[in-house]
Amino acid sequence: MTDYSGRIAALQARLRAQSADLAILAGTDHMQYLTGWREGGHERFVGLFIPSNGAASFVVPEMNASQARKTPAGISAVQGWFDETGWHAEALSAAGVGSLKPGSVVLVDDELHSVHLLALQKLLPQATFREIGTTMSRLREIKTDDELADMQHAADLIDGIVEEAFTQLREGMTELELQGWFLDAYKRHGTRPSFTPLICFGKSGAMPHHHTGDTRLQEGDVLVIDVGCISNNYASDITRTVAFRSVTDPLAIQIYALVYAAHTNARSKAVPGVSGEEVDTAARSVIVNGGYGEFFVHRTGHGIGISTHEPPYIVQGNKEPLLPGMCFSVEPGIYLEGRFGVRIENIVTMTSDGVRSFNAEPADHLRIVG
Amino acid sequence: MTDYSGRIAALQARLRAQSADLAILAGTDHMQYLTGWREGGHERFVGLFIPSNGAASFVVPEMNASQARKTPAGISAVQGWFDETGWHAEALSAAGVGSLKPGSVVLVDDELHSVHLLALQKLLPQATFREIGTTMSRLREIKTDDELADMQHAADLIDGIVEEAFTQLREGMTELELQGWFLDAYKRHGTRPSFTPLICFGKSGAMPHHHTGDTRLQEGDVLVIDVGCISNNYASDITRTVAFRSVTDPLAIQIYALVYAAHTNARSKAVPGVSGEEVDTAARSVIVNGGYGEFFVHRTGHGIGISTHEPPYIVQGNKEPLLPGMCFSVEPGIYLEGRFGVRIENIVTMTSDGVRSFNAEPADHLRIVG
Repeated sequence: MTDYSGRIAALQARLRAQSADLAILAGTDHMQYLTGWREGGHERFVGLFIPSNGAASFVVPEMNASQARKTPAGISAVQGWFDETGWHAEALSAAGVGSLKPGSVVLVDDELHSVHLLALQKLLPQATFREIGTTMSRLREIKTDDELADMQHAADLIDGIVEEAFTQLREGMTELELQGWFLDAYKRHGTRPSFTPLICFGKSGAMPHHHTGDTRLQEGDVLVIDVGCISNNYASDITRTVAFRSVTDPLAIQIYALVYAAHTNARSKAVPGVSGEEVDTAARSVIVNGGYGEFFVHRTGHGIGISTHEPPYIVQGNKEPLLPGMCFSVEPGIYLEGRFGVRIENIVTMTSDGVRSFNAEPADHLRIVG
Repeated sequence: MTDYSGRIAALQARLRAQSADLAILAGTDHMQYLTGWREGGHERFVGLFIPSNGAASFVVPEMNASQARKTPAGISAVQGWFDETGWHAEALSAAGVGSLKPGSVVLVDDELHSVHLLALQKLLPQATFREIGTTMSRLREIKTDDELADMQHAADLIDGIVEEAFTQLREGMTELELQGWFLDAYKRHGTRPSFTPLICFGKSGAMPHHHTGDTRLQEGDVLVIDVGCISNNYASDITRTVAFRSVTDPLAIQIYALVYAAHTNARSKAVPGVSGEEVDTAARSVIVNGGYGEFFVHRTGHGIGISTHEPPYIVQGNKEPLLPGMCFSVEPGIYLEGRFGVRIENIVTMTSDGVRSFNAEPADHLRIVG
């Protein structure tokens, strides 16, 4: 059983420690983490109000009120609002606005829509609004054993599905067809995507966030497949780069070896107390020294848990130490526009003596499949 | 060919008319409308900066820069930012911050994440930030003939799929199984969901935004099916309430008739110049007079276009006139907790002499299917 009350109490302790008076969460992964429930509300306001002292309360559209009353967090104060009167009066009441003194600090969900933040800033002019990101990250980024077990299961699932996918490749199939195959496979395995499967054939792989399209698979293509699924709300994420049947461009073999060296160097340098920046440097220095630094256009990794992307980020500027229980991706890449891309991503978790991978090990050379 | 330059020029004219200096759009439907491209960026900042005079520019993660340079809007000023240095310097430059005087007004995308708005407020302390919602709505809510044709096509698609679904109902199937059938049907028809298919069997229908689950279909159940798909970026949306094989609860027949009367009364009162509030009243008064006012817990409708929910809202408080070319849902409902729900939704467009429905007409009585 997840201890939602304990999670809320831990957030309240962190609010008090930084002299913040109130946290306002939107219907995001933060709400999922704190209450076991999430409702985005589309354009309607959905808020979870957690004062530094006292009871939490929900302000939700009336049509979601019965769901909010039944979350596993057992929050009994649920204020439903109606379309014709709007949410402002309820929000003020839930915020205990009478007790908010000038200079009060309110931490708001990073993903709260601006239209709602602008309204809250008007409603509570005596308050200073700050992002809650770091505060929530400190709660969420060190996983419990139960959370680690869910993440291992999600990784096992996606590892198996990726291997199965390699047997499904057919000359002339489109990226979208392979994407559809993944979505069907998730359903067969009782899981769902943690993000839209990213399928890149040939030149498409040179765009790290390519939009999967109608490109057809040809012999000799380098494929970049970046996919993930969910187990009990926790995400997996993996990227594999392979060649279809043969290698047309011999540079791909060399680039793969360089990215693989960057990947393994980053993992070997990741021990408790090392920062995200240092792990990024461990990957980046290999690629820079290999002469391809300008083509490694993104950070080395991101944390992962309920959110597919969450702190800790493995990036220059992140000087926070990586600690046991944290989970993150290691995914260096090189992108040669008009030619191909290579990215190798595993999810790892920090232990007392270095990182352990949830995913199976990537090949140490450009693997040929199909 | 969509006239993206014309859309951006129209936005700039509206900025000047209200003495606003700058619009900042996030990777949302607004960006899709203005540029033919959208990239959410996950937690990374993606911004489209449109000054009241001068050229638009993108600030995007470097890994999305090549996509931003190729949008059909042909915006050549694209500033990519790198994970290790962040987006702040690029945003300031794109915002032409040197020319923003104290008191400058910046309109921001409703759905811009709060973490980014708080950063922009710090970066541009001399500016006043307001929501762009109404300004963009005025541009988007009156559809061109091309847009209306796309919406008609999306409606035709979903109407056909719903009729096909009624032939697929089997005793004991779960809501999630029927949801999966819809997703497969969308794929077969070359479309995709405009929102996750909402499938409610029996008591589930008493929650307007029920989370589709493991409830199994039983003879006599009242089903609420709320689904929609996409044609060329434009959304459809329809709700049908039917009984499976027989009617167990005779009250359902009476409630259906009441909701149907509310639905048709709202549509008959919707003529050019009437407000969203008046159309809501036309639906609501029928249900109130029938004695079920307290069980109609939501507004009568929402506008629809590129976004499934957008202005004009058919709700108390919306006194803006409905004008030819606007498109919106008419979807009154009654929800009896622990028993069943009834909702009847068509999408209509305003014409010079009243509304025309994109969807086929709903049955005038509780239809039995299966």
